[in-house]
Amino acid sequence: MSLITLMTDFGRCDGYVGVMRGVIAKIAAAATVVDLTHDIPPQNVGAARFVAMNSYRYFPAGTVHCIVVDPGVGTRRRAIAVAVTVDGDVQFFVAPDNGVLDGVLAIATDSNCRAVSLTNRTYWRTKEPSATFHGRDIFAPVAAHLAQGVDFALIGEAISVSALVRMSFRSAIATSQGICGSIQYIDRFGNAITNIPAEQVTARSWQIRTQGQTFQSYRSYGDAPSGRLLGLIGSHDWVEIAVNGGSAAKRLGLQVGTSVTVMGC
Amino acid sequence: MSLITLMTDFGRCDGYVGVMRGVIAKIAAAATVVDLTHDIPPQNVGAARFVAMNSYRYFPAGTVHCIVVDPGVGTRRRAIAVAVTVDGDVQFFVAPDNGVLDGVLAIATDSNCRAVSLTNRTYWRTKEPSATFHGRDIFAPVAAHLAQGVDFALIGEAISVSALVRMSFRSAIATSQGICGSIQYIDRFGNAITNIPAEQVTARSWQIRTQGQTFQSYRSYGDAPSGRLLGLIGSHDWVEIAVNGGSAAKRLGLQVGTSVTVMGC
Amino acid sequence: MSLITLMTDFGRCDGYVGVMRGVIAKIAAAATVVDLTHDIPPQNVGAARFVAMNSYRYFPAGTVHCIVVDPGVGTRRRAIAVAVTVDGDVQFFVAPDNGVLDGVLAIATDSNCRAVSLTNRTYWRTKEPSATFHGRDIFAPVAAHLAQGVDFALIGEAISVSALVRMSFRSAIATSQGICGSIQYIDRFGNAITNIPAEQVTARSWQIRTQGQTFQSYRSYGDAPSGRLLGLIGSHDWVEIAVNGGSAAKRLGLQVGTSVTVMGC
Repeated sequence: MSLITLMTDFGRCDGYVGVMRGVIAKIAAAATVVDLTHDIPPQNVGAARFVAMNSYRYFPAGTVHCIVVDPGVGTRRRAIAVAVTVDGDVQFFVAPDNGVLDGVLAIATDSNCRAVSLTNRTYWRTKEPSATFHGRDIFAPVAAHLAQGVDFALIGEAISVSALVRMSFRSAIATSQGICGSIQYIDRFGNAITNIPAEQVTARSWQIRTQGQTFQSYRSYGDAPSGRLLGLIGSHDWVEIAVNGGSAAKRLGLQVGTSVTVMGC
Repeated sequence: MSLITLMTDFGRCDGYVGVMRGVIAKIAAAATVVDLTHDIPPQNVGAARFVAMNSYRYFPAGTVHCIVVDPGVGTRRRAIAVAVTVDGDVQFFVAPDNGVLDGVLAIATDSNCRAVSLTNRTYWRTKEPSATFHGRDIFAPVAAHLAQGVDFALIGEAISVSALVRMSFRSAIATSQGICGSIQYIDRFGNAITNIPAEQVTARSWQIRTQGQTFQSYRSYGDAPSGRLLGLIGSHDWVEIAVNGGSAAKRLGLQVGTSVTVMGC
Repeated sequence: MSLITLMTDFGRCDGYVGVMRGVIAKIAAAATVVDLTHDIPPQNVGAARFVAMNSYRYFPAGTVHCIVVDPGVGTRRRAIAVAVTVDGDVQFFVAPDNGVLDGVLAIATDSNCRAVSLTNRTYWRTKEPSATFHGRDIFAPVAAHLAQGVDFALIGEAISVSALVRMSFRSAIATSQGICGSIQYIDRFGNAITNIPAEQVTARSWQIRTQGQTFQSYRSYGDAPSGRLLGLIGSHDWVEIAVNGGSAAKRLGLQVGTSVTVMGC
């Protein structure tokens, strides 16, 4: 059984995703295709980076993750594939070389990771791809061929992992005030996920401060009184800000980049 | 062939649903997974109850319906599975014990229905589940194991069907004015579905009154003049209020709970 | 392997699509089902026509495309199936006879296309279908039976291709000012797709004029400076208006039908 995940910023209304599914079905009829999400905000490479980084390790070994959030489509940005081995299992990624794999590459070394530039047009849908829809003409067909078992080394020229485009983020830092970080993602519930890793928070109970307000940690949303702001260790293993039964992002006016301090941890 | 349906309030933008798909694929690679909907309004157990109740009987025998609308995640609410036999076919449900199965349980008796509390951690993704994402760590893996044929009795301790959490609804009642009921659901078209069952409406033509207006029944949307308010027997087998080519909910300011009377039926 | 695509205006929130998936799974358990889109604006037959026309040829031979955008459901409009052979490959369509197949039929002749009216109730879900949900009771089950290999001629009475409902569109025309056309579709990014075919634009560089502004052609979005309006040949093979990193439709107030002129081509 082969499995392909799709992540794009195409939305669902236009048939672009459907067309990619058709292209995949022509090459890898028996592959299972899972829509990771198609609602990445248009051209938001940072949001796609976050979702990719936090989801791939839940999939079976050999899964091919096809990511098309690609503001530079048709320009000279590279199209790449990356194979990462984690705990003995390989995961494949097919994506533009624009930083979207930055989170995945956080654990990459020369020994557990290989990369290629997608230069072998044999595995494209057409030798004359559209200048605006590489999802259909390059990324989907290459992902389908990988899922069919085509050798990773055949799909393009090897490139150094250290040459791949990365994003620059400020990490959370420990200060005398506490751990200072920032919001890196806001989900559909309005939960705000910080860049403070769970493993830096060892106390059972702690406080979190942002936008001039300080509030208490709880184990889960429902443990706090209804409508109460809370900090918690989220399912992504980052410190998270939430409201029981509401949107923390709306309540506090949180955005990606808003500063946050965890105290007493 | 095994089949799993997923219903959540996770939306589509964040990758939460994709992660559940990955967890399922690791356990039940050959299962077909159908997204029933992921756009239940956040924490709206009543809407999920309506969709579950009106959709499950269209699926093949043995389907596992995994429902994660779970405002109480991480609190002491139970996680449950229910097996209901209808017309000789069993349907499985995996869900929090918060009333979301209330509509499904309307037909449940001790002889056609069994329930268990999901206490057997062997079938969880991890013995230390996240306090906020039981969809990933408990509900999805248990659903996948059931789809793989794991015995229902093995996944947890048997509990009495009569001990499951139910929701309290006022039923439609016959009065001298007509049948008095209320709106129980509003769909994406703005059609308002009442709690008045089709079988209580035996006349060929009848009237419906709500928000100070009275209008006529038609067989289908397109049978009414364009823009006309109408009553009809909807596809869910409930009395429904609609506008040909428009939104009845917007036009009349209808909400869940708005009173409705059917006359001349 | 059999493949069914679904396109509707049902949205994703209500379970209507899920129910169609259940009906299909009961008939064609092994079929792969691809959601082309369910977010066609309610009752917008023109938008569905555009998506169908631009997506079907990317799917494998034998694919069954089930389209339910059906404002006339329950009235006397016909339900139809069409088989079109392109480059030796047959594609099947199951849909209401309301013009939604107009774009697909642009290439249809008596020799490459057959049509039937869905009159054989053997292949419906029930001989007494709902007056409002033919997607569940007629279109989905007929599509599933076709995917299972049921003979096209068995599902209903043959009808003449020339008798099918078409839509009337003004085509783009060449004038002394340039090629005059109009917007036929606006996608999720706010890109506006005109009805001017790519093959009428042979110059390497050209200009496009709409809403009192004139701007330059580029090969792809990212080739233009950030925020710049541009014309380009889109992936659908129509002239398209876009903004690098923004929404052309919002910037210029474009709508379906807005006039556009391509000059210097």
